Amino acid sequence: MAGRSNNSLKLLGMFASPFALRVKLALSFKGLSYEYLEEKDLHRNKSELLLKSNPVHKKVPVLIHDGKPVCESMIIVQYLDEAFAGVGPSLLPSDPHERAIARFRAAYIDEKLFSSWMMVFRGKTDEEKAEGTRQSFAVAATLEGALRECSQGKPFFGGDSVGYVDVALGGFVAWVHAIEKLYGLKVFDAAQTPLLAAWLERFGALDAAKAVMPDIEKLVELARMTRQAQAAAAAAAQGN
Amino acid sequence: MAGRSNNSLKLLGMFASPFALRVKLALSFKGLSYEYLEEKDLHRNKSELLLKSNPVHKKVPVLIHDGKPVCESMIIVQYLDEAFAGVGPSLLPSDPHERAIARFRAAYIDEKLFSSWMMVFRGKTDEEKAEGTRQSFAVAATLEGALRECSQGKPFFGGDSVGYVDVALGGFVAWVHAIEKLYGLKVFDAAQTPLLAAWLERFGALDAAKAVMPDIEKLVELARMTRQAQAAAAAAAQGN
Repeated sequence: MAGRSNNSLKLLGMFASPFALRVKLALSFKGLSYEYLEEKDLHRNKSELLLKSNPVHKKVPVLIHDGKPVCESMIIVQYLDEAFAGVGPSLLPSDPHERAIARFRAAYIDEKLFSSWMMVFRGKTDEEKAEGTRQSFAVAATLEGALRECSQGKPFFGGDSVGYVDVALGGFVAWVHAIEKLYGLKVFDAAQTPLLAAWLERFGALDAAKAVMPDIEKLVELARMTRQAQAAAAAAAQGN
Repeated sequence: MAGRSNNSLKLLGMFASPFALRVKLALSFKGLSYEYLEEKDLHRNKSELLLKSNPVHKKVPVLIHDGKPVCESMIIVQYLDEAFAGVGPSLLPSDPHERAIARFRAAYIDEKLFSSWMMVFRGKTDEEKAEGTRQSFAVAATLEGALRECSQGKPFFGGDSVGYVDVALGGFVAWVHAIEKLYGLKVFDAAQTPLLAAWLERFGALDAAKAVMPDIEKLVELARMTRQAQAAAAAAAQGN
């Protein structure tokens, strides 16, 4: 965008956050440079800058542009598309109805995908975990249908190139692989949801995606440490 | 918008839905005419048109424009703003950062306001209900701060005229009054949140809002009937 410097972009993130990854992906696809600031301890010691920049939710990601913060991952992605309209590809389509469909699908991913996985991760009973698995396959089936319908034989939700929905789902790509390693569960299974499984590989192979993807082993390690800490806390609580 | 007919707009709604009301408000503020179709029994008998138009969530509101459905209230409001860009006032501001702030506030209302009220309505214990009341006042305090900051002495979240956030919150105006009648609870209290209480009156007095607001007595009656039906179902379940 003429006269607008990208040097003033800062991103507050955390390496394992799928929501921060969405913003990294959008920045990468649009070819925007930025300063990245890692939140090292979101549980016990959030940075002053995070608390000041996102006082309502106190969560990553936060994008700071020319000193002004923008919060919530998909709101940031839309902001980047609008504030840097002339820079790199547009992530949202130009047609109003197609934009509405893209926003609907991204909202569906936000509302359903992560919560179904959390039931698998954090379900207190076997029934809850099984219900989480059932729901995560149902969500995958809906996304398979969306991919079939909206891409019409094209490689991405956005058509020939990645768009808004690809970024929304792309934030979870590394976690899909980590979940398989942790639980032996292929949430985007090639037999049940072949288009989605192919999308997973295709998206992950993009140079602009590879440039910002977290190391899957580190996600696995983080999840195991979190699990151990929770088990220890539960044991300590029972001891009281 | 040149060459675009508004006669092809249909809205599937339900009179008590705050989400359907948002779309009615946006249509009213933009001066768009439409055919309204009331869903008469969302619990037991959804219309074929609703099931076909919103197969993922099966919920109102759905806007159908030239035969193409758009779902989710704030996605519909954005769609109306984009598809009828030249018709009536713009609801989202033109500046990208102000747009992001408006989207953030609308998302906050979606995520926090309704859920806190549902705890008051449907809380199973007195503690849960008290927590709901506490949360609903905390949400109101955050909105009070947003109104102070973004309107800067102006009457609406959108400034001198209503905008995207006013529509997001406006969907709940009739329910704020109904909750007071049902529970004696002023969720937008003039002593604690004076700007928000003044906004409530000012918004409700707009001709374009009055034209689409539901009858508060009917909301009260619906809530009482729902409560009686739930109590009867709970008693029957205990009897089994």
